Amino acid sequence: MSDTAKRFLKVGIMVALGLLIWFSPAPEGLDPLAWQYFSAYAVAIVGILLRPFPAPVVMLSVVGVYGVIMGPKDLLVGYSSTTTWQVFTAFMISVAFASTGLGKRIAYGLIGIFGKTSLGLGYSLAFTDLTLALAVPSTTARAGGVVFPIFNNVAKTLGSSVEDGTSHKLASYLALTSYHINLVTASIFLTGMAPNSQIAAFAKDILGVDMDWMTWAKMGIVPGLILVLIIPILLYKLFTPEIRKVDNYKELSRSGLNEMGPMSTREKCLAVFFAMAVLSWATTGITGFNAAAIAIMFLSLCLIFGCMGWNEVRQSKGAWDTLMWYGAIIGLSSQLSGAGFFTWFAELLQTHFNFSMFNPVVLLLILVVGGLLVRYMFASSSVFTTSMMPVMYTIGLVGGAPIMPLAFLCAACNGYGAMLTNYSGACGPVLFGYGHVKMKDWWTLGAVSAVCATLVYFLIGLPYWKLIGMW
Amino acid sequence: MSDTAKRFLKVGIMVALGLLIWFSPAPEGLDPLAWQYFSAYAVAIVGILLRPFPAPVVMLSVVGVYGVIMGPKDLLVGYSSTTTWQVFTAFMISVAFASTGLGKRIAYGLIGIFGKTSLGLGYSLAFTDLTLALAVPSTTARAGGVVFPIFNNVAKTLGSSVEDGTSHKLASYLALTSYHINLVTASIFLTGMAPNSQIAAFAKDILGVDMDWMTWAKMGIVPGLILVLIIPILLYKLFTPEIRKVDNYKELSRSGLNEMGPMSTREKCLAVFFAMAVLSWATTGITGFNAAAIAIMFLSLCLIFGCMGWNEVRQSKGAWDTLMWYGAIIGLSSQLSGAGFFTWFAELLQTHFNFSMFNPVVLLLILVVGGLLVRYMFASSSVFTTSMMPVMYTIGLVGGAPIMPLAFLCAACNGYGAMLTNYSGACGPVLFGYGHVKMKDWWTLGAVSAVCATLVYFLIGLPYWKLIGMW
Repeated sequence: MSDTAKRFLKVGIMVALGLLIWFSPAPEGLDPLAWQYFSAYAVAIVGILLRPFPAPVVMLSVVGVYGVIMGPKDLLVGYSSTTTWQVFTAFMISVAFASTGLGKRIAYGLIGIFGKTSLGLGYSLAFTDLTLALAVPSTTARAGGVVFPIFNNVAKTLGSSVEDGTSHKLASYLALTSYHINLVTASIFLTGMAPNSQIAAFAKDILGVDMDWMTWAKMGIVPGLILVLIIPILLYKLFTPEIRKVDNYKELSRSGLNEMGPMSTREKCLAVFFAMAVLSWATTGITGFNAAAIAIMFLSLCLIFGCMGWNEVRQSKGAWDTLMWYGAIIGLSSQLSGAGFFTWFAELLQTHFNFSMFNPVVLLLILVVGGLLVRYMFASSSVFTTSMMPVMYTIGLVGGAPIMPLAFLCAACNGYGAMLTNYSGACGPVLFGYGHVKMKDWWTLGAVSAVCATLVYFLIGLPYWKLIGMW
Repeated sequence: MSDTAKRFLKVGIMVALGLLIWFSPAPEGLDPLAWQYFSAYAVAIVGILLRPFPAPVVMLSVVGVYGVIMGPKDLLVGYSSTTTWQVFTAFMISVAFASTGLGKRIAYGLIGIFGKTSLGLGYSLAFTDLTLALAVPSTTARAGGVVFPIFNNVAKTLGSSVEDGTSHKLASYLALTSYHINLVTASIFLTGMAPNSQIAAFAKDILGVDMDWMTWAKMGIVPGLILVLIIPILLYKLFTPEIRKVDNYKELSRSGLNEMGPMSTREKCLAVFFAMAVLSWATTGITGFNAAAIAIMFLSLCLIFGCMGWNEVRQSKGAWDTLMWYGAIIGLSSQLSGAGFFTWFAELLQTHFNFSMFNPVVLLLILVVGGLLVRYMFASSSVFTTSMMPVMYTIGLVGGAPIMPLAFLCAACNGYGAMLTNYSGACGPVLFGYGHVKMKDWWTLGAVSAVCATLVYFLIGLPYWKLIGMW
């Protein structure tokens, strides 16, 4: 079959699916509007998976077609979503790290310390992210805006880049490690991820427990740290980079730094803005500033003080692509949630299943595994939180699951569940957008790490929480 | 003063202005929130006029700074505005006309019909532009990207080129005709010019009238067509080209078309989609479809059927620039309007000035002539729209001018006002840049055409609108 025929077959599948859902009667108890949004959402997700055309073209088509029928206003809301803008600005900010050479300088520094093996680099990445997780409560800002851009430069310096088709040498390993570690550190601290505070609010409202910063950290630190230790080696075994040892790493680091010479003014500016942004992100809990607004301001400071030129930003193709497709999917998913689709889904589950027949731990497992499966449908951790967390908490409560483990496990599975796809959380499109990792590997290894995380939380987390008297 | 110093002086002016308004008490009767938005809006407009940095950088900075203080949600709404999307897709669609060659083919066809005399060429140019104005809502893409490059080649073939110093033989006449016609067709259709959709939004917000595609076309078509008929002959009389007859015009058209070969599939697709889009835009009053959704669908059809590639679209720098700055300004202006700023401004004017002392038609004339004079200060039709249109509409409303003529005349004067100089709109620098026309001629004849357009709109437009019941 020719490429064109394949393309149009895929488009045919999308159209057929959309029509099928659209013209089926809405299930009982579901707002017909929610059913229509579901039709659009299903077509969009299948379109992004089959990818008959680049993702932005797929999403613009969905918005175009459904926009003509349903009116475009509600379908375009994602383009003004702060989540979308956080993702988009992360792309642009990373241009500054490349353009000024600051990323390179930090990378050379880290190579000098950890660069003896690629596994060592994996761990230095993991600990950088862990440290930042204390202070940067946005997975996107952390991995997408800070950590990975630096390690991408490390890989480039060591001769692994997407431009040369040499991602598999090192960069693909680092990209996936960065993504998975980021989603583990996200759940160690209450401040590790934006939706966590909303989850804590649900835990209070629905379960009647207080998940404050210290309680969260006490529960999260042991299984979380174990995962931070396991994941770099796990991925190293399963997704081994070609570059393993770097014998001349000390010399490489030194000569690289020498070649760069002293810091330029714009590099210094970036370092200052970077520190300011991290500080601002770290204190959003006190100042009330919005993380996306800080990102936009960081970006504009970089542009004004010449850390990068507008022309460079304009040529950042990944940023525009992401803005186009991610903005559309975020819009769809928030409409789906707003129209009550997920509430209906929860009621459907409750009507058809008798959750209290299960052993409490089995019930927890069902909830987490179920949550992970449903996670494939969600393009945002925040939307997953908003729509699924009440459902999971309600089912667990009704079924008699132990409260604190229930509260924490559902929160954690919201975090590491994003490993499963390249669209599940804001950070996914950013790291995937670098192009180092193929979709198949991304999804397969994502599932492996997610299973590993589930095992650690159940086999180590649960007994540990018992030990410290949490249930 | 160095360029950098100049830049930062301009930024200093912006910052000072913003602080001054922000910390002044809000005028009596105005919501303090509206006053804060006004501070942002004023800084944005001054920033776009002074342009210390490219417009997108200016606007992102405003959104970043005010977003940190006020929260970014309300400042980002413009990015999901259908107005923004109409402007944005306009740029992208123009790519298809250049890429497939359909624009060129239309021009050669018209040369075969009208090309016997240089006046005929002027008319064929005028009708090509008029046809394209239905679907290419960027004056720059239309005249600068499609129409004039073709007629410049025609002139060269007929022995008139800037290289030989023979512009006056034909090319200078065609260049000026192209420019003036372009700015007349810009106001015939809602889709004739990017800022028109914003003007329609202002008309809805401030005047409470719905300037949909059909209404706009109904009002624009009669005075617009008369101007399309007048301008080529007017310029022919005042700026007569040396070449008057073209004996081999049939052959010229034939060989041009032969050189292009038969229509490619993608060219045919574009022609079909083009016709469908025009039909859909023209019937939105009946179908209720949204014009922006139609544009997005038109765009996605072009992408799916390969009229252009995503890569070509992605490289359309103007589109991304516009999305960035225009989305921000649209968001600000809609917040300003939502917070009741324009209502307050209207009341203020009403209290202090007695606009109703004028006869309504005289008031319209004062507004249009005033607008034209101010137009010399503006380097962009979009900026003129954003800053002057609300003022003109408010004054007209307060002074009791007839609403529909007010709505249309101000819009039209934004279009043809760009004739006055070589910098008033993005298209000016492009056509002037060919070097066929001297600055003195450009400005003098621009003023003549603008006066002519004003006369036609007032002497023919007003009675015609009365006749069809628009006031």
